[in-house]
Amino acid sequence: MEKYKVGDLVSVKTEGTQYTGIVMPSLDEEVLVLKMKNGYNVGISKRRIVSIERIEGGKTPTYKRPELSLERREGLKNISILSTGGTVASRVDYNTGAVHPAFTAEDLILTYPELLEMGNISARSLMNILSENILPLHWKRIAQEIKREVEGGAKGIVITHGTDTMHYTAAALSFMLDTNIPVVLVGAQRSSDRPSSDAPLNLLSGVLAATEPIKGVYVVMHGESGDTFTYLHEGVKVRKCHTSRRDAFRSINTIPLAKIYPTSRRIEYLRDVEKVEEDPRIEVNTSLEEKVALLKVYPGIEGEIIDYYVDRGYRGILLEGTGLGHAPESIFDNIKYAIDSGLLVAMASQCINGRVNMNVYSNGRKLLKLGVVPCEDMHPEVALVKMMHLLGNYPLEEAKRLLTVNLRGEIKPSTRFDCY
Amino acid sequence: MEKYKVGDLVSVKTEGTQYTGIVMPSLDEEVLVLKMKNGYNVGISKRRIVSIERIEGGKTPTYKRPELSLERREGLKNISILSTGGTVASRVDYNTGAVHPAFTAEDLILTYPELLEMGNISARSLMNILSENILPLHWKRIAQEIKREVEGGAKGIVITHGTDTMHYTAAALSFMLDTNIPVVLVGAQRSSDRPSSDAPLNLLSGVLAATEPIKGVYVVMHGESGDTFTYLHEGVKVRKCHTSRRDAFRSINTIPLAKIYPTSRRIEYLRDVEKVEEDPRIEVNTSLEEKVALLKVYPGIEGEIIDYYVDRGYRGILLEGTGLGHAPESIFDNIKYAIDSGLLVAMASQCINGRVNMNVYSNGRKLLKLGVVPCEDMHPEVALVKMMHLLGNYPLEEAKRLLTVNLRGEIKPSTRFDCY
Repeated sequence: MEKYKVGDLVSVKTEGTQYTGIVMPSLDEEVLVLKMKNGYNVGISKRRIVSIERIEGGKTPTYKRPELSLERREGLKNISILSTGGTVASRVDYNTGAVHPAFTAEDLILTYPELLEMGNISARSLMNILSENILPLHWKRIAQEIKREVEGGAKGIVITHGTDTMHYTAAALSFMLDTNIPVVLVGAQRSSDRPSSDAPLNLLSGVLAATEPIKGVYVVMHGESGDTFTYLHEGVKVRKCHTSRRDAFRSINTIPLAKIYPTSRRIEYLRDVEKVEEDPRIEVNTSLEEKVALLKVYPGIEGEIIDYYVDRGYRGILLEGTGLGHAPESIFDNIKYAIDSGLLVAMASQCINGRVNMNVYSNGRKLLKLGVVPCEDMHPEVALVKMMHLLGNYPLEEAKRLLTVNLRGEIKPSTRFDCY
Repeated sequence: MEKYKVGDLVSVKTEGTQYTGIVMPSLDEEVLVLKMKNGYNVGISKRRIVSIERIEGGKTPTYKRPELSLERREGLKNISILSTGGTVASRVDYNTGAVHPAFTAEDLILTYPELLEMGNISARSLMNILSENILPLHWKRIAQEIKREVEGGAKGIVITHGTDTMHYTAAALSFMLDTNIPVVLVGAQRSSDRPSSDAPLNLLSGVLAATEPIKGVYVVMHGESGDTFTYLHEGVKVRKCHTSRRDAFRSINTIPLAKIYPTSRRIEYLRDVEKVEEDPRIEVNTSLEEKVALLKVYPGIEGEIIDYYVDRGYRGILLEGTGLGHAPESIFDNIKYAIDSGLLVAMASQCINGRVNMNVYSNGRKLLKLGVVPCEDMHPEVALVKMMHLLGNYPLEEAKRLLTVNLRGEIKPSTRFDCY
């Protein structure tokens, strides 16, 4: 098979079909991406390729940059887009083939000219990190930068973020920020050099949500496998539930707040949402206790792992228990040791869906007696982040009390039937 | 409010309604269960109760046991029901108020006379353990007892089991047993002394499934919130996904094998299932390596926890990574240390749904280079149990190879679109 490089005009044969186009950079090694004459990109699985012929080699396609007016328009809100390194706001460099974050407003608006009509857009890159490598220190930096934007006049914030841990960051920002404007996290499951990318729909929906008179932290991602609508999820009630699908994010123990149709610029609220029309206000509290462990239990787990955390100076352990909030009795002594040593030990369920209820069976009641705190309807990732926040800000007893008190919508008094 | 005890005839007033009946034992402290004159049980939330009046105290209701014929019938298969302590096959003792496993065939058939027409039923109790306390040693015992039943002439096995870890046990039995008859695990999310109990539908469906000419290990549980049908799930592709709902169990990365309507004794297959008409055959291999850890990663996780497992003599670690199968780069050195020390380190996804694909992003590719084994479309609980089985039976390199080879249906070549 002939060699080719990004920028080459090639003719590709697969079983039954032939494609002619310019080779584009691709983040997926298994897929060859061609830009066709009609302007569309097509992704071809390399396994399906029978032969490739180079028609014109070495040419670097040149694109003329259209003229842009970034003048502020009256009546539009100031929206700041902050990039942390997700694939959602990426831009292809046709010379090198690399995928860079599109971190200037110009770049973004060249890609998505619709943004000009949605708000007065500013954009900058905070960092360029795959979200699997995001650490609590990055949460703090993002929180501080959001504050800077609000103080600079932003009335809505959009954070582009890798999807792997976007829900952890959303939960962290929910607890760190006290604000009356919307902070919307968006990601993409397919990079923007792929024809099936979900980046456009998610980004445009995220900006649209950021222009709404709502407050707090949200996640906006594809609502179904097609390109029709996205969902607006509460930042404390959402989770990545699929490795690869575009509709990977789901609200847990509640339904999404709204459906967003960005092409028609329509938001359909599915629940009552408090509308806020005040001057932007923000307070940031980035204190976190990072010595909190997430421990998923399983048949045969050894209790000594808990002793390890105690002896390493941990201040909290979130147990991801079974069912309604249970753990094997074989580790009860170790749990007691942790609590006696002054750790906050709490319980969420590895079922992911549903509420913890430790009053039903004897196992749960014994754990309650030991002092384990039931995390209500919080899913494990949110309970973990909340523990980090509380233990970073309050003495043990107060942290313990607040863990079961609703602070940011993370605990609902009752669970809707239609959210499973 | 007046005191009352199990067996008392009482009159209960709530806002708007009045109930008269005999106080029944209740597993839920928040609920008072009354047996009404019409024979039905009603559960009343104690919060709703305004007053209780005792009409006749201290009486222990007596029930006359109907005559039973347990003679073997020609043309019906021998089905063995083995109880491990779940609430599904429980029976209320009206004298003490305790809930006991209904472990004799007589008990079960008194409760579910339909069983007589389904097969020649035998039943016994193996143990009485809340499933959150089930250990690998119990998996081994259950496997051995199943073998004993098959050698005694059983052509189908039903295991009643607590729901918390039923999917772990189902996976363990799947790998431990090599058999050509069906082994069906059933549980109940609501105990049988509650009017909304799912025990009858699940048990009858499980017995019906055990009379089918199918082979391998299955889980049968409610298919929806009503009482219409149950699902037949593959034992290696199922998981408890809700803390309390009756339809808590879901097939992961595939659809259920069948819908079961036990009242009309109908099974509707949703996928092709191999039918087996041979003499019952079973082989059991209970070798397990219990030194395998499940480690769910999260932002800020400290890599030293991996060193701990290595130094404690663990032979395998299943990472429950983010997204397509990633872990923070900050723990890569520790992962390398584990692999260099001869541990099998594998990767499943905390997304639960979807396939691990570590070739897409640099983080995954680096982990592959370190020697981390991607667990394909196995969800974490199944990957963990499979590692225990493989490390208990094969040298490291062979265990590593077999982890990505389909043995019992746990790895599907491709993932259906309609299973998320």
